Amino acid sequence: MYVIGERINGMFKDVRAAIQAKDKKVIQDLALKQLAACANALDINVGPASDKPIDAMLWMVEAVREVTNAPLAIDSPKWEVQSAIIPKVTGPKIINSCKSDESELDRYVDLAVKNNASLIALCIDEKGVPSDVEKRVELGAMAAGKAMEAGMTMDRLFIDPIIVPVNVAPLSPTVVMEAMRQLQMISNPPPHLVLGLSNVSQGCKQRHLVNRIYAVMAMSAGMDAFIGDPTDTDLMDAGITTDMLTGKSIYCDSFLDAYRMTVRAAAK
Amino acid sequence: MYVIGERINGMFKDVRAAIQAKDKKVIQDLALKQLAACANALDINVGPASDKPIDAMLWMVEAVREVTNAPLAIDSPKWEVQSAIIPKVTGPKIINSCKSDESELDRYVDLAVKNNASLIALCIDEKGVPSDVEKRVELGAMAAGKAMEAGMTMDRLFIDPIIVPVNVAPLSPTVVMEAMRQLQMISNPPPHLVLGLSNVSQGCKQRHLVNRIYAVMAMSAGMDAFIGDPTDTDLMDAGITTDMLTGKSIYCDSFLDAYRMTVRAAAK
Repeated sequence: MYVIGERINGMFKDVRAAIQAKDKKVIQDLALKQLAACANALDINVGPASDKPIDAMLWMVEAVREVTNAPLAIDSPKWEVQSAIIPKVTGPKIINSCKSDESELDRYVDLAVKNNASLIALCIDEKGVPSDVEKRVELGAMAAGKAMEAGMTMDRLFIDPIIVPVNVAPLSPTVVMEAMRQLQMISNPPPHLVLGLSNVSQGCKQRHLVNRIYAVMAMSAGMDAFIGDPTDTDLMDAGITTDMLTGKSIYCDSFLDAYRMTVRAAAK
Repeated sequence: MYVIGERINGMFKDVRAAIQAKDKKVIQDLALKQLAACANALDINVGPASDKPIDAMLWMVEAVREVTNAPLAIDSPKWEVQSAIIPKVTGPKIINSCKSDESELDRYVDLAVKNNASLIALCIDEKGVPSDVEKRVELGAMAAGKAMEAGMTMDRLFIDPIIVPVNVAPLSPTVVMEAMRQLQMISNPPPHLVLGLSNVSQGCKQRHLVNRIYAVMAMSAGMDAFIGDPTDTDLMDAGITTDMLTGKSIYCDSFLDAYRMTVRAAAK
């Protein structure tokens, strides 16, 4: 399980206020708190907090880099932001994200390769989010092909088949699981499969429960990474237990603690 | 989701004492408590509580029938017990269980058909529990074939692919999920797929967590029934949410309550 912590996002009130007040301690605390909770990487998203997204993103990246060298997922749909920021991020980094249009993929894969970055490719094209399994797999496979052609190894590519909220698209969770089962087979080793987990419950009640249960379902269908809240202990326990039950780790009486010790040790 | 409540079992101290003292109120309270918690059926198991298993089973069945007409799963590996008890159980009943040997299946299917009972067939033969997917599917398919030949509809047959504790057999959870995916396709409609859920965590720590997470994984692979504890609210919430996320029920803001209202209304 590879967890990209979602909390440094200008959509959240505390982060928005911190960006506007240039209060880097708030951002740094959120970084350390998520890493202590076993995030493997940290998402960095300005969101609606600033009308100068490049400046704000750079300020956030620098603030976080003062306290950790953990991988940073630069979260912006804008090419101007990604192409300006990615070359300036020291240490491990992830481009989050690009659509799987041919021309988009060409420039994003190139940006990733030139800057030794990982890339999250969304199963979205110019027509938007596909409603079926087949188109998702086709777009994911195209992204994998482009990445391979450019010499990226599959451990650098994250394919996101896009989960749509269950209250508006009841079949979306099932379609995405089937897409992941098929995307697992497009190469060996396969690319990472990732979701923006909290999307499944957007606008729903019982959000933590729905996110957690869908994480287990999606992981048992092949998802090995998600963008979510590592400080949600129930979610992390569910993920750790799923890894154990799918044979990715071995049962021991302290399997929950053992996982956390390992992640923290690897981060040192 | 079809939940067979596991609590009326002589393995539990309170039930054992009740059987020995012939205190039927304890048994009846457990029946009503599990039904209130949305069990769809009640398992009845004498366990080690009596050296006269037929008498003890009959006493338990009669005690429970005084308070409910819910389906009863007569839980004994002994033919003498099943053949003596099943004809005497009024109302809906389930034979729990028989091995999938040819000769065993012949007499159990016959007992089920003659008494209008459902049947749980285990994917076990004279050599014991198979270690692989293929043998489980073969045994399950044989049970389904025998049942069909005798005129049983598939909604009367429960196939149990047998989960072995994860601390002794780390691949068992994965093997059982794959067996269920394949067993779902042996007929249309398929037989029910059931597990004795708590077996997965036998001898483990964190039993509730492991049972609950495996329930979600197994349900997303095709399991539609389990023998478990309906009074474990977290387990039930997880199951109800899985049904919703797999499209078996539709999201509504009160989806947890809605499920419970529906089950209780259907039981009246």
